[in-house]
Amino acid sequence: MKKFLNDPKNFVDEMLEGIYLANSDVTYVNDDKRCYVKASPKPGKVGIATGGGSGHLPLFLGYVGEGMLDGAAVGGVFQSPSAEQMLEVTKYIDQGAGVLYIYGNYTGDIINFDMATELADMEDIKVLSVVGNDDVASSVVGEEHKRRGVAGIFFLYKAAGAASEEGMSLEEVARVAEKAKDRTRTIGVALSSCVIPEIGKPSFEIGADEMEIGMGIHGENGISRKKLTAADPLVDEMMDKIFAEQDYKAGDGVAILVNGLGGTPLEELYILFRRVHQLMSERKVNVKHVWIGEFATSMEMAGASVSVLHLDDELDRLMAAKADTPFFKHFAK
Amino acid sequence: MKKFLNDPKNFVDEMLEGIYLANSDVTYVNDDKRCYVKASPKPGKVGIATGGGSGHLPLFLGYVGEGMLDGAAVGGVFQSPSAEQMLEVTKYIDQGAGVLYIYGNYTGDIINFDMATELADMEDIKVLSVVGNDDVASSVVGEEHKRRGVAGIFFLYKAAGAASEEGMSLEEVARVAEKAKDRTRTIGVALSSCVIPEIGKPSFEIGADEMEIGMGIHGENGISRKKLTAADPLVDEMMDKIFAEQDYKAGDGVAILVNGLGGTPLEELYILFRRVHQLMSERKVNVKHVWIGEFATSMEMAGASVSVLHLDDELDRLMAAKADTPFFKHFAK
Repeated sequence: MKKFLNDPKNFVDEMLEGIYLANSDVTYVNDDKRCYVKASPKPGKVGIATGGGSGHLPLFLGYVGEGMLDGAAVGGVFQSPSAEQMLEVTKYIDQGAGVLYIYGNYTGDIINFDMATELADMEDIKVLSVVGNDDVASSVVGEEHKRRGVAGIFFLYKAAGAASEEGMSLEEVARVAEKAKDRTRTIGVALSSCVIPEIGKPSFEIGADEMEIGMGIHGENGISRKKLTAADPLVDEMMDKIFAEQDYKAGDGVAILVNGLGGTPLEELYILFRRVHQLMSERKVNVKHVWIGEFATSMEMAGASVSVLHLDDELDRLMAAKADTPFFKHFAK
Repeated sequence: MKKFLNDPKNFVDEMLEGIYLANSDVTYVNDDKRCYVKASPKPGKVGIATGGGSGHLPLFLGYVGEGMLDGAAVGGVFQSPSAEQMLEVTKYIDQGAGVLYIYGNYTGDIINFDMATELADMEDIKVLSVVGNDDVASSVVGEEHKRRGVAGIFFLYKAAGAASEEGMSLEEVARVAEKAKDRTRTIGVALSSCVIPEIGKPSFEIGADEMEIGMGIHGENGISRKKLTAADPLVDEMMDKIFAEQDYKAGDGVAILVNGLGGTPLEELYILFRRVHQLMSERKVNVKHVWIGEFATSMEMAGASVSVLHLDDELDRLMAAKADTPFFKHFAK
């Protein structure tokens, strides 16, 4: 295993120590480094929390900061945090206006966030939830509730975070997140496995000339494994899945996220984006917001995903708003 | 070769197309996509240009933007751009106050930037140069002029860019860059090779349990190849090389850049930073600015480098200033 680490058991907590030493804008509560929160909560603002397994940086905790989220409960690598950890985060970030949970559609996370919601209710904290399920490869149309949440959750964070900064109520922030969810689609492709530190070897095998379209960010099965093609036909095939589901009309606006899974050079993400932009231009769809880089990774996995948010005026405004976290910075436009 | 690309010959130009499609703040001159410039130069400001081979994103062009650089000439993967390309960038970014070149210490770049300086002189554009040579592994003390420029050039860009935004003269901006250069040291470690698209196979071999301390960002030989150790003793060994050269006294301030070479997860960079911070704290040195992520890569190479800038009051102020490029965003503090 070629990793920079000490004892694999300490991987997550030493990483968290590094993050806290690097950034005074974030801290932790309940004497538990895995209960990660913004150091200065904003009185009266709706709190937004997320959570999930480690190994996906900047997901999840990387989006805690101004204009985005207020806290995140962090689990071991690819493991859900506990309901108690989520509750501690919730109690800290509640500033009297309630708390919205935004997290990905995974069984462990659902169980724990649901339990945290009940525990918060006993503390008289009102909690609503929006569950990201943007991965079009993980189930068919009509069964969207079975789909995994992947990189497109970024758009939910961005929209809800900006809405909360604008002073919207809990119900309004949840409405915005739900709308962003309904209008977000993601498709990914993996070229290599990742290595979980405590396991020390690749999670799965993939041939030297193979790719897997639709693989999940924990290595879950995709929809097809085949020989790696050139970038343009690959993007065409990926985008067909997205175009089949969202009716982007001429003149519509979209936000695009081209996400690297960890081991793919930034250069290649721009080559993928180039083709995505061409396909949008052919349809006369306006690419109004673009983010390209690593936004939701699987450790050192080689691969990429494309997420598209179908904008309306409100989402367009919220995408343009300022965000400033240790891992994500966006100047207002 | 597992890469997202079309014809490898078009790798650089398709990547550039993607960048221009994604960002309206940058453009190109002389009808040559490799002559990359800020779309709106600021009248009267000293222009700052860099240049070098592709394959290192966000180096080099990624630092073109507000508070950083004004232009960059871009070569093929790991190849220097031409003197003519540098001249075209220089002509465009000169706003009457002259141009500073900041680039890394590589033979091809030196030849071409020197020639561009002569060509610019014939056009009555005053040019000064500062050549980054921060890699302590690439030559001994007393022969610093033989050292390669690596990730620490980021500090030169940041300092000079902020100085230029403040309205300093060409000579003053060059003085600031030269000072940042004198006070910057970098040490790297590589765990795997990268693959140049037109070659299609790893540039070198390295054993499954080996690391090479001091390897260059094009795979140049380092100072020792041995079995990969745990992160903390590795950082201790790396930092010894830096501590041997710069006299950081109790109470001094430093800026730290922990840079991933492309294939190393962000989580691991924070584990490395944690130990760097511990070593600085033991010496009562104040870590005042921290950047952790991918700042100068070698395609998909696994590995990392640590750069330290020994601050003074002026450099501290310049590090804190706003920067806003498509690849690097920093809110003023």
